[in-house]
Amino acid sequence: MSLLVVGSVAFDAIETPHGKVDRTLGGAGSYFALAAAHFTPVRVVAVVGEDFTEKHKSVFRGRPIDLAGLEHAPGKTFFWSGRYGINMNERTTLATELNVFAGFNPSLPKAYLNSSAVFLGNIDPTLQRSVLRQIRPKPRVAGLDTMNYWIERTPAELRRTLKHVHILMINDEETRQLTGEHNLLRAAKHVFRMGPRALVIKRGEHGALMVTKEFVFSVPAYPLEVVRDPTGAGDSFAGGFMGYLAKAGRVNRQTLRSAMVYGSVLGSFAVEHFGVKRLATLTRREIESRARHFSKLTYFKL
Amino acid sequence: MSLLVVGSVAFDAIETPHGKVDRTLGGAGSYFALAAAHFTPVRVVAVVGEDFTEKHKSVFRGRPIDLAGLEHAPGKTFFWSGRYGINMNERTTLATELNVFAGFNPSLPKAYLNSSAVFLGNIDPTLQRSVLRQIRPKPRVAGLDTMNYWIERTPAELRRTLKHVHILMINDEETRQLTGEHNLLRAAKHVFRMGPRALVIKRGEHGALMVTKEFVFSVPAYPLEVVRDPTGAGDSFAGGFMGYLAKAGRVNRQTLRSAMVYGSVLGSFAVEHFGVKRLATLTRREIESRARHFSKLTYFKL
Repeated sequence: MSLLVVGSVAFDAIETPHGKVDRTLGGAGSYFALAAAHFTPVRVVAVVGEDFTEKHKSVFRGRPIDLAGLEHAPGKTFFWSGRYGINMNERTTLATELNVFAGFNPSLPKAYLNSSAVFLGNIDPTLQRSVLRQIRPKPRVAGLDTMNYWIERTPAELRRTLKHVHILMINDEETRQLTGEHNLLRAAKHVFRMGPRALVIKRGEHGALMVTKEFVFSVPAYPLEVVRDPTGAGDSFAGGFMGYLAKAGRVNRQTLRSAMVYGSVLGSFAVEHFGVKRLATLTRREIESRARHFSKLTYFKL
Repeated sequence: MSLLVVGSVAFDAIETPHGKVDRTLGGAGSYFALAAAHFTPVRVVAVVGEDFTEKHKSVFRGRPIDLAGLEHAPGKTFFWSGRYGINMNERTTLATELNVFAGFNPSLPKAYLNSSAVFLGNIDPTLQRSVLRQIRPKPRVAGLDTMNYWIERTPAELRRTLKHVHILMINDEETRQLTGEHNLLRAAKHVFRMGPRALVIKRGEHGALMVTKEFVFSVPAYPLEVVRDPTGAGDSFAGGFMGYLAKAGRVNRQTLRSAMVYGSVLGSFAVEHFGVKRLATLTRREIESRARHFSKLTYFKL
């Protein structure tokens, strides 16, 4: 399946107990594309400003990442700045400057219109729907990420978009906020009534949980002794997940389970270094080796 | 292996969003014994007061639970009262009345002295050590639970006791507090230097993680739509874990992994009803069926 992602391409300034980087390439779209491209070609829909030069694109080069949908607009590129404490599960956002993203109204290149797998990164649900609407025929699999901001501010728009989505990929807190239900199994049933057939709950250091109408599947986080920068873990998870599914070409119990594992694998590599650094040096061999390690992490015989 | 547990036998008053019970049988020793007895005979070391009558013992009857080590002392039985909100991971302790437990100085019945598997429930580490010292020859496997109270107030005593323990079974927060290390893999290395060869981290709704010098193993929590009362989940986990190990008669990679699964199974049943109610009606068939379900929860093929 041909895979398209819409999401931010940004500059990030990040501080963690392991160091600090300034204006490094970031954004959900970047992490997603770099993760997914290890499995399948990716079409990127995003906007950057005049400060985003050819040099900044270099990390995408030599990979099956199509940037025909990367719009250049007058103004500055989306900028995010955040700080993590010793508890890497909590972060403080220091700055969010939407810049060119504020006026973004994605118009897909013609070659993107037949995308059969689509991931709607965490942006305004109205924009997410506008991207989805341009794709014909309807994608075979559409995934969506969102956050508290959209759940609170644009609940009706989010609901309208969710009707057309198959897989919702959010965290525990967002699941509870979206559904008003604390218990995650019951929350999943609420989600199913909104449209999606599968709910993937990203739980950071606790791994990820998938609930569908047919089964529940749990994958742990890969145990790491050093987590340098958690930024982009969830987006890399989504990239590994959707990239694997698109490559597999089928969505069924088995491919969904493997997608959860590959999502976790890509998320675990992403946090080993700052920004997209680790995703950029990663090899297919390292990915497969870590995926096999996940079997050992959970394998038992009664 | 013959299994001994030392831990509280108590009266609990519990309030959760699903209801309320007053003065029901509780305490780590009770949950542990009822869980472990599904696998193997259990010897109980604890103290109760004059208000603890034959009627209260009835739930232990007809099971392989030896109460020769249940001391009756003048005064009242240990009493705990707590309330859970909608987030079942957090609880408010309303009352803790040690009563007869305050002057407890366990002296083991002669028939208990050869116990080859021992679990030291969450009590004063000095008492834990005194129980361990009475057992000859040294037990083949000794597990220990503790909590923030002892980590803060009696750190030296706890360290002295840990030297003689093989498996430490605590939660994330306690692990971090005990070792001063946020990362759980690095924290486990600290724990290994204190004596134990295995660290089992109980994570409530996120399952449990085992770290040994040789391997890491993760088991999810069983997904339940209704959690009525989380009290005793960790103690039931410990009971299932140690009960299975004692029955298996060997401590190795495979039995440790299965013990993690059976621990999770017993913990998941315990929370389905108030107090020890569900553990008391549980059958071996239900246990095996849920254990098999755990395979489905985590099984994947790349």
